[in-house]
Amino acid sequence: MESSRLEAFSDGVLAVAITLLALNLSVAGPGHGPLGDQLRHHLPAYGAYVVSFFTIGIIWVNHHSLFGGLRRIDRTLLFLNLVLLMFVVAIPFATTTLADYLTAGGDQARLAAVVYCLVMLGMAVSFSLLFWWPVRQGYLLVALSPAQRQAALWRFSLGVVVYLGCLVVALFSAPLTLLFSALIDGYYIFERTAAAGATAPESGSGSGSGPPAGS
Amino acid sequence: MESSRLEAFSDGVLAVAITLLALNLSVAGPGHGPLGDQLRHHLPAYGAYVVSFFTIGIIWVNHHSLFGGLRRIDRTLLFLNLVLLMFVVAIPFATTTLADYLTAGGDQARLAAVVYCLVMLGMAVSFSLLFWWPVRQGYLLVALSPAQRQAALWRFSLGVVVYLGCLVVALFSAPLTLLFSALIDGYYIFERTAAAGATAPESGSGSGSGPPAGS
Amino acid sequence: MESSRLEAFSDGVLAVAITLLALNLSVAGPGHGPLGDQLRHHLPAYGAYVVSFFTIGIIWVNHHSLFGGLRRIDRTLLFLNLVLLMFVVAIPFATTTLADYLTAGGDQARLAAVVYCLVMLGMAVSFSLLFWWPVRQGYLLVALSPAQRQAALWRFSLGVVVYLGCLVVALFSAPLTLLFSALIDGYYIFERTAAAGATAPESGSGSGSGPPAGS
Amino acid sequence: MESSRLEAFSDGVLAVAITLLALNLSVAGPGHGPLGDQLRHHLPAYGAYVVSFFTIGIIWVNHHSLFGGLRRIDRTLLFLNLVLLMFVVAIPFATTTLADYLTAGGDQARLAAVVYCLVMLGMAVSFSLLFWWPVRQGYLLVALSPAQRQAALWRFSLGVVVYLGCLVVALFSAPLTLLFSALIDGYYIFERTAAAGATAPESGSGSGSGPPAGS
Repeated sequence: MESSRLEAFSDGVLAVAITLLALNLSVAGPGHGPLGDQLRHHLPAYGAYVVSFFTIGIIWVNHHSLFGGLRRIDRTLLFLNLVLLMFVVAIPFATTTLADYLTAGGDQARLAAVVYCLVMLGMAVSFSLLFWWPVRQGYLLVALSPAQRQAALWRFSLGVVVYLGCLVVALFSAPLTLLFSALIDGYYIFERTAAAGATAPESGSGSGSGPPAGS
Repeated sequence: MESSRLEAFSDGVLAVAITLLALNLSVAGPGHGPLGDQLRHHLPAYGAYVVSFFTIGIIWVNHHSLFGGLRRIDRTLLFLNLVLLMFVVAIPFATTTLADYLTAGGDQARLAAVVYCLVMLGMAVSFSLLFWWPVRQGYLLVALSPAQRQAALWRFSLGVVVYLGCLVVALFSAPLTLLFSALIDGYYIFERTAAAGATAPESGSGSGSGPPAGS
Repeated sequence: MESSRLEAFSDGVLAVAITLLALNLSVAGPGHGPLGDQLRHHLPAYGAYVVSFFTIGIIWVNHHSLFGGLRRIDRTLLFLNLVLLMFVVAIPFATTTLADYLTAGGDQARLAAVVYCLVMLGMAVSFSLLFWWPVRQGYLLVALSPAQRQAALWRFSLGVVVYLGCLVVALFSAPLTLLFSALIDGYYIFERTAAAGATAPESGSGSGSGPPAGS
Repeated sequence: MESSRLEAFSDGVLAVAITLLALNLSVAGPGHGPLGDQLRHHLPAYGAYVVSFFTIGIIWVNHHSLFGGLRRIDRTLLFLNLVLLMFVVAIPFATTTLADYLTAGGDQARLAAVVYCLVMLGMAVSFSLLFWWPVRQGYLLVALSPAQRQAALWRFSLGVVVYLGCLVVALFSAPLTLLFSALIDGYYIFERTAAAGATAPESGSGSGSGPPAGS
């Protein structure tokens, strides 16, 4: 199995999952009250759509950064990748559930938020494993110094910590959970020397021990 | 991140989005009145399907023309591309909403038309940004003369102007909005020396300062 | 635009369309009568699924045969290809409609069969145009003798004739229409020296003027 | 037709099919009882989702192992591959049916389990044919010794035996059928010297007569 095939299949799954998010945008249509009201009631769905679209988009960017830095793929990685995809494919479900209950308040809304964060946490844990395994096995194209390795592992574990925080927020408020997820997206979009920097050449972080150009 | 990977992922998203348009073709089936009547009531959906199918098709053609002319991709482009895809993926929703209310008349139909044009406008604005950023950063394979650059930026901004016009039409009539969109499609299909010509070799426009063959 | 990009996008659309066929397999589930009865009522859907699955599969095989034989793609081909895809993406809708009315009998069943054949006819006409245009423009990798050219055009027009016949059958009987479509699939699967042979090397037909190996 | 094109199309179909599995995760939403109860009633769906997700994932892994070991593709293989995909695309339907009836008990649950195993059996039979045909025709990159050939054919036929067993289990209990399928997944994931090893280099099994590196 070459990395390119694994990435092509993962791309396909991510592309379908990100597009299925849009299935929840549609209103019921004529005969279900004025269109204006229907759209207003769907506002949480539009907010959740934007947040989860960028979440999957960021997963896609980081997924390529990760695999672009590997010189070898084994069967364990194939199946760890499947676990990651299994959680990613559940994101449209989690997003729809959160959006449907966002303004319901009370226990129901908090439960929906917990479901949302659990799916995200599963995704984050599998992403960490997907990084930890090739580091442990020495599959990186560019050998890392112990300090770089520590920093890289920390970066890839950040998502786990962050979505554990999401779970705590979910116990208090569903709208805050969505806001929290939006902030996570913003962090990953605007911080340039991202996890990617640890393994992939494209972010060109100017560090002296930088990886070779090419990729 | 190589351009080919970005294009492959975008292709996947565009392919799923263009296929999801067809979900709105289906009639309710036996038990919901004569099939002939059901099909007749779905005529607006068939018209809207054709128009939006070509809109996404044109986006695909222009997307490749744009990226075929770049020598470098950065993280900003990745995320601008995600913004474009976020609006493209919403096109099936906008199309279904317009089709459902097309013959309803009154405020509801106009509101549906406004929703449709807003999604298209968001798509056009993000496409313009996606062209403006590499021009500004100097990522084009072929350097443009100031006049060419002005012309290219104008071309890529054309969509914004056109869909602002769509928004004005939407305030008057939903059917006219669909007709207007069909004319936009027709313009992009039949004008050969399109935006593509500014950056991509394949349209071979015979200009003296033409881009090098290859690509 | 290279042929490989056009093929990759078309592959994506065909893959999604062929998979959406399966959405019509699902039964309503608990609370809608015994599962055995539900499955029995769905038998037409299973038959239609198999027939249309192979129809789209054959389109995919012939699509690659066609584009594998071209040395050049122009904008006209891009848009003719979009027209083909527009009809292919409507095949799940046409299949579901035919299956839903297959055993209804009377005008309704015949109308459903006419809708099915019209979508297939649109597909066949656009496939013929997609072959006629590069022959006319001289885009084939291997120049054809006038006799070969005539034979090839005839082969690619065969679908049009066949689906016109489908339309005639549809006026009489919906079940016969499905049977007729199954026979068309069978013909394309089992005749080896297919249309593909005219342009693509892979079918190795042993003709003296065979195309060069490689591709 | 090159192997890479066949694999890309198959990847696309597998990616859509694996993602459609998630459509059955969604609960009905507000107005259908407490969210907690809805989620609890969906527990069988979540279990079935995980099992079928890995089943399709394993098909994907073995599919590439198989085609990575071939030096030639013919039209028969194309159509055998379509038969395999036709069953794979039906897996979301089979999974949803099993999940919906899993806790119903009685004849209905057993019938749902039989449907599930029949789809899996169809998949396993077509996978065996897909391996048997190139062995018979001598299309393997690496010639097998008679003993290796026997072992490889046995391995690829294992799925047929296993899903015949599934069918027997289905006659007794739907929950046991799901458990049985989970065990099959586990077997394929954790046994390293899998069917793949017979034809593809990537599993590097250290056998003296190992296939050449590269691929």
